[in-house]
Amino acid sequence: MLLCDIGNTSYHFYEDGRAYKESTLDFNPATLTQKIYYICVNAEVNKKLQKLQNWIDISSFVDKTKYYESMGIDRIFAVEAVAHGVVIDAGSAITVDVIRNGLFEGGYISAGVGAIEQTYKNISSALAYSINFECDFAIMPKNSRDAISYGFLKGLYLEVESHKLPILLTGGDAQKLKQIFPDAQVNEMLLFEAMQKIIKKANIC
Amino acid sequence: MLLCDIGNTSYHFYEDGRAYKESTLDFNPATLTQKIYYICVNAEVNKKLQKLQNWIDISSFVDKTKYYESMGIDRIFAVEAVAHGVVIDAGSAITVDVIRNGLFEGGYISAGVGAIEQTYKNISSALAYSINFECDFAIMPKNSRDAISYGFLKGLYLEVESHKLPILLTGGDAQKLKQIFPDAQVNEMLLFEAMQKIIKKANIC
Repeated sequence: MLLCDIGNTSYHFYEDGRAYKESTLDFNPATLTQKIYYICVNAEVNKKLQKLQNWIDISSFVDKTKYYESMGIDRIFAVEAVAHGVVIDAGSAITVDVIRNGLFEGGYISAGVGAIEQTYKNISSALAYSINFECDFAIMPKNSRDAISYGFLKGLYLEVESHKLPILLTGGDAQKLKQIFPDAQVNEMLLFEAMQKIIKKANIC
Repeated sequence: MLLCDIGNTSYHFYEDGRAYKESTLDFNPATLTQKIYYICVNAEVNKKLQKLQNWIDISSFVDKTKYYESMGIDRIFAVEAVAHGVVIDAGSAITVDVIRNGLFEGGYISAGVGAIEQTYKNISSALAYSINFECDFAIMPKNSRDAISYGFLKGLYLEVESHKLPILLTGGDAQKLKQIFPDAQVNEMLLFEAMQKIIKKANIC
């Protein structure tokens, strides 16, 4: 069964334990002829896929009334897979969702690692550094690279830790964030596991 | 005495209680003939100003050994003006510096309000909102505008409050941040007050 989670920048495919990506800019979904079960947050791509009979949108197989209207379907699926914890999906955006005892409390969206590095660079060439995930949060920074790294990461760290819940990391930058949340569990396949669970429950294939 | 604080996007002038801005993109500093005492974080503009005799760079009149090499001169001047507190300068970047009992502990840099709004918009058109400074930090967001606002502001709020120091707000977005730090003191002229103090101390005019 071929699964696909489509974000703002990539088609993320999964089949038989193997995952791979294609860019939303140049991949043509009409080149695939088998059935693909998908979720998609990219409105432009979604419009294309609705016209292709072998691309099956499984977003309607979850009860969306528990969530809010404009909440990304990837966040909803991730939350569906977790009963108790903070889910951090670190991709082009970093989404943080809180589920306590099976109940979705809400969540928020920070800029992704690549996006924030670009933002600092756009503000000033003097801030064109990569984020230092080994930055020491216990002391106030005294160099530019740590100043932007702390500025980006310390608040996220404090907010996430404030919930006192298990932390689950997914998305392309999960391993990077693992450095600031050493006790977190990394599961890069969380979305695909959620998709499989929901497909099975809906009994659609 | 005409003062000028030059940032990444603006020349910020001050004379006799009146402040005004010019864009770094189209203002020609050679059009001014009187003496201007300035500090500048914009390397390109600084190169131009070094050639103009009436533009007097006052950055060397502070003892920079207390700070770090790549620290912006605007941050250094702001810190010089404060004996005890957290100084937040909210411009194209948001800089946060901590001074405790006259000692500079260090500081960090977050994206500015305009920069982060642009970042969210670049990530996805579904995130093209203005930041909601009235966003309730006590509950987890359940709509997109609050999700990005909380994502940008809550961590900053938690970090700044963690120092348990008086908060001083300056920069073009000081009034916006006042909404999340209601007890903070706003002083949009902080940099100019620091410049006047340092000019007086150095006895250069």
